[in-house]
Amino acid sequence: MRNLEISNQELSDLAEEALALAKGYWASLEERRTYPTTSGKQTTELFSRPWQESGRGREVLQDFKSIAEHVRPSTGRFFGYVVGSGEPVGALGELLAAVLNQNVTSWRSAPAATSIERAVVGWLAEAVGCPGFTGSLCGGGSTANLMALAMAREAKLPANETGVRPCVIYASEQVHMSIPKAVALLGIGRKNLRLIPVDDKFRMRTDALQAAIAVDREAGNMPIAIVATVGTIISGAIDPLPEIADIARREALWMHVDGAYGGLAALAAPEKFQGLSSADSLSLDAHKWLYQPLDCGCLLYRHPDIARKTFSHSDDYVRILSDDPTEAFAFFEESIELSRRFRALKLWMSLQYHGRHAYREAIARDLHHAQMLAQAIASQPELEQLAPVSLSAVCFRHRSKDNEAILRRVIARGRVYLSNATINGHFALRACFVNHRTTPDDVQAIVSEVIAAADEINR
Amino acid sequence: MRNLEISNQELSDLAEEALALAKGYWASLEERRTYPTTSGKQTTELFSRPWQESGRGREVLQDFKSIAEHVRPSTGRFFGYVVGSGEPVGALGELLAAVLNQNVTSWRSAPAATSIERAVVGWLAEAVGCPGFTGSLCGGGSTANLMALAMAREAKLPANETGVRPCVIYASEQVHMSIPKAVALLGIGRKNLRLIPVDDKFRMRTDALQAAIAVDREAGNMPIAIVATVGTIISGAIDPLPEIADIARREALWMHVDGAYGGLAALAAPEKFQGLSSADSLSLDAHKWLYQPLDCGCLLYRHPDIARKTFSHSDDYVRILSDDPTEAFAFFEESIELSRRFRALKLWMSLQYHGRHAYREAIARDLHHAQMLAQAIASQPELEQLAPVSLSAVCFRHRSKDNEAILRRVIARGRVYLSNATINGHFALRACFVNHRTTPDDVQAIVSEVIAAADEINR
Repeated sequence: MRNLEISNQELSDLAEEALALAKGYWASLEERRTYPTTSGKQTTELFSRPWQESGRGREVLQDFKSIAEHVRPSTGRFFGYVVGSGEPVGALGELLAAVLNQNVTSWRSAPAATSIERAVVGWLAEAVGCPGFTGSLCGGGSTANLMALAMAREAKLPANETGVRPCVIYASEQVHMSIPKAVALLGIGRKNLRLIPVDDKFRMRTDALQAAIAVDREAGNMPIAIVATVGTIISGAIDPLPEIADIARREALWMHVDGAYGGLAALAAPEKFQGLSSADSLSLDAHKWLYQPLDCGCLLYRHPDIARKTFSHSDDYVRILSDDPTEAFAFFEESIELSRRFRALKLWMSLQYHGRHAYREAIARDLHHAQMLAQAIASQPELEQLAPVSLSAVCFRHRSKDNEAILRRVIARGRVYLSNATINGHFALRACFVNHRTTPDDVQAIVSEVIAAADEINR
Repeated sequence: MRNLEISNQELSDLAEEALALAKGYWASLEERRTYPTTSGKQTTELFSRPWQESGRGREVLQDFKSIAEHVRPSTGRFFGYVVGSGEPVGALGELLAAVLNQNVTSWRSAPAATSIERAVVGWLAEAVGCPGFTGSLCGGGSTANLMALAMAREAKLPANETGVRPCVIYASEQVHMSIPKAVALLGIGRKNLRLIPVDDKFRMRTDALQAAIAVDREAGNMPIAIVATVGTIISGAIDPLPEIADIARREALWMHVDGAYGGLAALAAPEKFQGLSSADSLSLDAHKWLYQPLDCGCLLYRHPDIARKTFSHSDDYVRILSDDPTEAFAFFEESIELSRRFRALKLWMSLQYHGRHAYREAIARDLHHAQMLAQAIASQPELEQLAPVSLSAVCFRHRSKDNEAILRRVIARGRVYLSNATINGHFALRACFVNHRTTPDDVQAIVSEVIAAADEINR
C-alpha cells in the first residue's frame, strides 16, 4: 500500500463514522449550553498532546465529542458578536469542496469551480442591488476591506511600484477595527485615517465629513477614499450612502462600503440600502447573514480593471495563454490570494437548495426578532435600550445593576449567549440576530435570562 | 418549520447522499483524465444559472457529478504546479469543522479549536526543526508572506501609525510572485525589492546579496529584511540559509524564509534545511507537502510580541478580560484575520490518523520520485534535464521538438498533467511531486507520455 493511502473499506467506514458524528451533533445542537463549562487549563490538558510517530487510526474521531463539549455551539440562542449559524447544507458543501480539492486560482486550474464562483458572486451582487459588480470570495470582512482599500490607493495615488505617498482616508468613528488595521498594513498610517463623528443614530455626520475633507485639502493633504458602513458592528447603524456618494463623486474619492455585517440584509430590506450601488467596492460576509459556515467573505467592485491594476503581479509560470475571456480569467489577477479553496460550492449548494425566498424570509425574521427584543426591553422597567435598532443588533442595559456582572452570570447560566459593547460610555449588553435557528421563544429568553441573572447577583 | 431549517430526516438523507458522492468520487479518482475535456463555453453554460426564488432541494446535489467532470482531479498523475493531493481524512476533518462552525478568533470564542490550532502549529514548528516558534494557520503562502513582511516592517521601521518610510527588502530573482505582491501591498513599493542573482543551482548568491546591501547603505537607503526561499517555485532550489542568517544578523535585518513549497520537506530531509531555525519567520503550506485539502497555510515566527505589535488593533467590543494566559489568547492580535475558520481540525485528524512516520515516508517517496524521473530523463537521449533536482521539482525538455506543443499534447492526452517554466530562457516542461497517490508507474508515465506526445506532433 502507498503511504498515507487507506483502503476503500477503511475510508468508507471512517466517512460513515464522521457523518454519524456530524448528524449526532446537529441533532444535539439545541440541547447544548450556549457556552461550555471549560477553562484554559482543561482545553490545554485535553488538546496539547504531541504528534506521535505512529498513527492513531480511526480512534482520532473520538476526539470529536470532547471537542464539541469545549466549543461554543451555533444554537438558536447564541446572540454574541456577528456570527452566522452554520447552515448544514453549506457544511455538506464544504465536505464536497474538500473532496474535489480544487485550487481555484483561475479557470485553467479549476474550470467548473471558477465558473461557479463567478456565478455566485454575481448572485450576491444582484441580490444586494449592485448588478454588474464583479469580485471574488475571500476569508472575510478583514480581507475584503484590505483589498478594497488597496484598490482605492492604487486607483487614486498608485503605490505598488514606488511606495506610498501621504494620503488620507475617512470613516466614521463607529468603523470596524479591520479598517484601521488595513490602513496600517497598507502603509498609509493610522494617523491618516480620519474618524468622523456620528449623529444620535450612530451614522456618519456628512457635514463633519465634508468639513474634514476641506481641512485636509486646505492643509495640502491628499484624500483618497471614504469608508461607509452598512451595519456598524456595535449598533447596526447604516451610514447615509446617498449623501456620502455625492461627496465621493464631487471630491473624486473612492467610496468603499463595509457591509460585512449588514450588507446582505439588502435582500430583505432593500429600502434601508438606498445608494449602495454608488459604491466603488462593497464587502459582504456570507458566513454572517447568509448563515454559511466560516469562512465565506466577498469583495464586490465596479471596475475589474482597477482590481487587476492592484493585484496583478504574475510570474511566467502562471501565465495564461488563451484568447477566450472565460478561459483566460484568473482570480489571482484580481485578489490578494493565489492558492484558493473552493469556497463557492457551499454557497452554490445552500442558496439553491433553499432558494432565494427562504433566505429573504430568514433575514426578515432576524430583523423582526430584533424589534421583538426591543419591545420586550421596553416592557421591562428595569431595562433600557441604549441605541436605535437599525438592523438586528440590540444594545441595552439593566438600569440599576452591574451590567458586566449580569453578562458574566448570563453566560455562566448557559441558556443564552450575549456579548457586550460600549455605548456613550455605558457598558451595554448586546444581542445580535444573524441566526436561522432562532425562534421567538429564544428571543424572549434573552430578557428572562438577563432578569434572572440580575436577581442572582442581588443575593 | 423555521426558515432554512430542514427536518432531521431530510438532513440525514441529504448527508448520506453527499457522502455517497464523496466516496464514489474518491473511488473513481485514478480512472479520471488528469485534465477534463472542457471549455469556457461549456462551464459557463453549465454553471451560470440564476439564483431562483424557490429552492431546488436535494436536486442540487446532482450538480456534483457535472462539477467533477469539469475540474482537475487530484490523481497520482497530476504533477503540475505545487498542488497537494487532498488527503481524505483531512477532507472529513473539513466536514466536521464546518459542522462545528467555530469562529477561531480567540480562546474565548472557540476554546477547544484555539487549543487545537496552537497544538498543531507547535507540531509543524517542531517537525521542521524550529521548536519554540509560534504562529497561526492562514489561507496560504501569499497571506503568510504578507504577514511576515508586515512584521519585518513593523520590527525594523514602524509604519502602522505614521505610514511607510522608504526601505529596502532583498530576495533572490527566483522568489515567488507573492513577495513582490506583498511588498506592493505594504506600500513599500516593488522598486524597493532587490532581486539578487542566483548561482548555477538557482540559489541566492550571498556575495551579491552582501554587495547589494552595501550599495544601499552607501546610498542612504534603509534595508529591513531578507527573504530566503526553501524550495523555489520553478526548480525547488534552497537558498543558503546559514550564510543568509549570518548576513541578516550582522546587518540587523529581518530574515523571512518562504517555505510554502519546500519547508515541510524538512520532516524527511532535515539535512537540506540547515539554518532554518535562524529565521525570524517561516511560511509553510500544509495544503502542499502535507497533502491537505486547500486551504491550510501557516506562518511561524520567533517573537509573538512583534506579531502583536504588527496586528493588534482591537476595539472595545472584543477586549478580553482574563488573567489566564491561555484564556486571554487571541489569534486576531497576532494575524491579519479576525473571523477565522477551524482550519486546524483537518490537520489534527489527518496527522494523528496516519502518524508522523507515514508523513515522513510519503515526503521521502516524493523526493525519491523526483530522482527517479531525473534518471528516466537521463536515459532518454532526446530529453534533457534543465535544472538540478533540489527537492521534488524536475524541469526538462525535449531536445529537438517544440516543447510548448508537446505540453499541449501531453495535457490533451489526459494521462499525466505537467506544467511549464522558463529556465535560462528555455521553455521547460515541469513535473512536481507533492502527491501521496503517486506510484513509480505514474512517474514512468511522465517520460512515456512526453515521448508519445513528441511523436504525435511529428506527424
